[in-house]
Amino acid sequence: MSKNLTSRSEDYSKWYNELVVKADLAENSAVRGCMVIKPYGFAIWEKMQAELDRMFKETGHQNAYFPLFIPKSLFEAEEKNAKGFAKECAIVTHYRLENDPENEGKLRVDPKSKLEEELIVRPTSEAIIWNTFRGWIQSYRDLPLLINQWANVVRWEMRTRLFLRTTEFLWQEGHTAHATKQEAVAEAELMNNVYADFAENFMAIPVIKGVKTEKERFAGAEDTFCIEALMQDGKALQAGTSHFLGQNFAKAFDVKFTNKEGKQDYVWATSWGVSTRLMGALIMTHSDDKGLVLPPNLAPNQVVIVPIYKNDEQFEAVSEVANGLMKDLRSKGVSVKFDNRTTFRPGAKFAQHELQGVPLRIAIGPKDLEQGTVELARRDTFTKEVVLLNNLVDKVVDLMTEIQNCLYQKALDFRDTHITKVDTFEKFKDVLENKTGFISAHWDGTAETETKIKEITKATIRCIPVDIVEEEGKCVYSGKASKRRVLFAKAY
Amino acid sequence: MSKNLTSRSEDYSKWYNELVVKADLAENSAVRGCMVIKPYGFAIWEKMQAELDRMFKETGHQNAYFPLFIPKSLFEAEEKNAKGFAKECAIVTHYRLENDPENEGKLRVDPKSKLEEELIVRPTSEAIIWNTFRGWIQSYRDLPLLINQWANVVRWEMRTRLFLRTTEFLWQEGHTAHATKQEAVAEAELMNNVYADFAENFMAIPVIKGVKTEKERFAGAEDTFCIEALMQDGKALQAGTSHFLGQNFAKAFDVKFTNKEGKQDYVWATSWGVSTRLMGALIMTHSDDKGLVLPPNLAPNQVVIVPIYKNDEQFEAVSEVANGLMKDLRSKGVSVKFDNRTTFRPGAKFAQHELQGVPLRIAIGPKDLEQGTVELARRDTFTKEVVLLNNLVDKVVDLMTEIQNCLYQKALDFRDTHITKVDTFEKFKDVLENKTGFISAHWDGTAETETKIKEITKATIRCIPVDIVEEEGKCVYSGKASKRRVLFAKAY
Repeated sequence: MSKNLTSRSEDYSKWYNELVVKADLAENSAVRGCMVIKPYGFAIWEKMQAELDRMFKETGHQNAYFPLFIPKSLFEAEEKNAKGFAKECAIVTHYRLENDPENEGKLRVDPKSKLEEELIVRPTSEAIIWNTFRGWIQSYRDLPLLINQWANVVRWEMRTRLFLRTTEFLWQEGHTAHATKQEAVAEAELMNNVYADFAENFMAIPVIKGVKTEKERFAGAEDTFCIEALMQDGKALQAGTSHFLGQNFAKAFDVKFTNKEGKQDYVWATSWGVSTRLMGALIMTHSDDKGLVLPPNLAPNQVVIVPIYKNDEQFEAVSEVANGLMKDLRSKGVSVKFDNRTTFRPGAKFAQHELQGVPLRIAIGPKDLEQGTVELARRDTFTKEVVLLNNLVDKVVDLMTEIQNCLYQKALDFRDTHITKVDTFEKFKDVLENKTGFISAHWDGTAETETKIKEITKATIRCIPVDIVEEEGKCVYSGKASKRRVLFAKAY
Repeated sequence: MSKNLTSRSEDYSKWYNELVVKADLAENSAVRGCMVIKPYGFAIWEKMQAELDRMFKETGHQNAYFPLFIPKSLFEAEEKNAKGFAKECAIVTHYRLENDPENEGKLRVDPKSKLEEELIVRPTSEAIIWNTFRGWIQSYRDLPLLINQWANVVRWEMRTRLFLRTTEFLWQEGHTAHATKQEAVAEAELMNNVYADFAENFMAIPVIKGVKTEKERFAGAEDTFCIEALMQDGKALQAGTSHFLGQNFAKAFDVKFTNKEGKQDYVWATSWGVSTRLMGALIMTHSDDKGLVLPPNLAPNQVVIVPIYKNDEQFEAVSEVANGLMKDLRSKGVSVKFDNRTTFRPGAKFAQHELQGVPLRIAIGPKDLEQGTVELARRDTFTKEVVLLNNLVDKVVDLMTEIQNCLYQKALDFRDTHITKVDTFEKFKDVLENKTGFISAHWDGTAETETKIKEITKATIRCIPVDIVEEEGKCVYSGKASKRRVLFAKAY
């Protein structure tokens, strides 16, 4: 572990890349664009998964598992709905390797094993799932069908970055079918709200809930709801999307049901997903030049106890206190690790836990034993204090809530000071370049203007916020009439 | 849902296939050999995952995630260790689809998108993981490295059966690295014991712990530990394996460490895995001609409450009792579902829950309300009894343990009466054909005899049991000297 991280002000992008690797979250693999998620990074993802999974189940969803591969012909059915969908994906064409007769010790693809129909590694599962739903849905009694899948997906990305954009990534994809349009729209909104709840209360990331413009919408969707977060460099990050798909997929895959009146109709659909990209959002929202900063609600270890000692006797005495403390903290639901490795010195341990963002560090040394104290150090504020052992457990429990809230408030303050109302295109460009963040501006509602603004500034419309107040105004670019402001930003 | 399941005595194989589909566990998909795991089946798998994951973590393992794809060249490094490893696997050769210019609405593989090096969809991850471990291990302080991965894997199987053998399946694969041979062997044994513990205490499946013969061993392993279960048709099923890999993978991928004495050495390795195949074992061990039978420790719903009513008033009165009961049962850790669907009659609900193996059914009707009773029905024994509501919660809690134990005992009795000591080859063939089950017989220790016996009888050596008592004897086939009996059986 080399010591110094590039600072955010020096090179934000480099800071991020270094942090992900040095904090042992993930690394690049031998496979182009695919990452290895290391145990510490995966432990954070597991906490996210567990919370999201609980929230999905509480809202009536069930998990299932569908094939990794999608026959090309099913893509063709979907293609009618989704002309714009990227076709960069991994394609399986053969099913056997053989020893290369011309090259001892080498393998080659057996040309006799060519598949009749190519298989696509799922970039998303609408096609295979809707093809399956056709067999599951006959009548209104089978609806709503509320399915979620945790899976790996593959999109052949040309430029990749750990967590933010990788060829293979992990995600969940919800796919639901409903008897009415109204129900399906309500479901899409509900799941966008679940995402917002998760982002704010677990990730401590404030998000703006909104609707995508037609241009930014998922191909095949009639409406895309989203949550948008703001990173410390003033760029936006789309943290989750939830699509109202109308009857498009039902029609493409012929999924009909008999309604209560005995008539046949196509079902209404939604899909919604979040991915390991959330790890990127988590890292970029809270971390600092010393390394990762984790909100207690998602930290694999909320507290680490580091023993300070000079000999075995001291180590044993400190360990006894630490073990008792661990037990007490765990009984209160605090996850705690006693870093009793004898192969590392306290200084190295401090540095590691700082880099890895453990919210609270407790150091216990011989002096503490004499005085009945410990030293507490907060990762987020770097504040240290000496605390009496007999007050400690309640204090730590309170600190977990306080740190969680502080991180959220800090991110919220940053975000709110980076939403700038702008009424001229000159100002738009100036704010985008110099202040960065979200720009709240009037837009004439045309894809043409949206495209122009993107060409000139690289900013896109992140969303039309759901709580935006209607107001008369003029488009910041075309000067045409507009009824509401929308949010622009450069984005990940 | 059609009514009658083929009986086990009529056609065991057909019974299994029908049961999996009718109980809503899984179904075949549009992709050859790949299954869809339906919500009810997946809920059972999730319970298995949760228990196993807890056991892995309690024994010091961490989860991580490695790429789905393995470059062909990494396979070539592994190939040196694993000549026998099957090469039937899904091979990605291209990364882009395009609209077919000659065929409106159709897609084709873009020939310009051919990969320089083919990617193999992981059939198992030793190659990519050991290639990664090289970067993670420098000194003894990095050891032991105890990693597990939950993942999908693909093996191009020619003949597939739901859960038992599918082209894509879900599994966990543990991969560990150690400083000494002794530690690695201990790890492989430990994890085989963890699997046995899980099979017996959660799946209620008695298993025999043993060691594979060289012929039946995982290619690249120096020793393969396994657990073997017996299905109701008298065929064995390998339920889990744990491999001591020696230094084979460390040498193939050049993974060295500096030991405490400052010398470089190759690390010692293990790998171990169980898969969705366990679902097949669970189904085939306990289920009957009426459908699935689930042990309470793995049932998604341990108890289902079915209301009996003739009008809204009765429905409300029954619901009130049911809701109170649900709350009380949940507070005691019993998972319970109130099947209050108004679109199905009680008879249809009874049939469904019987088919789906819910361990205990509680029916509550208007008479019960008058008398303060409910009707309990056990799925495993079909026994029914009327019980006073105020004793019910403790009774249900006790029944969960009792049903779990009964299922285990029943499976154990069946298994134990189907281990037959045999000393002649005539008897061997007779028992195998007519009594079925495990045959305990002397074997001369040669692969030649093993092969011959398999050719003649289709029986393989399932394992050399770890607790086998040494005894002098003569090989059942060759008559040569033997020091211990081994277990033969036909197997899945």
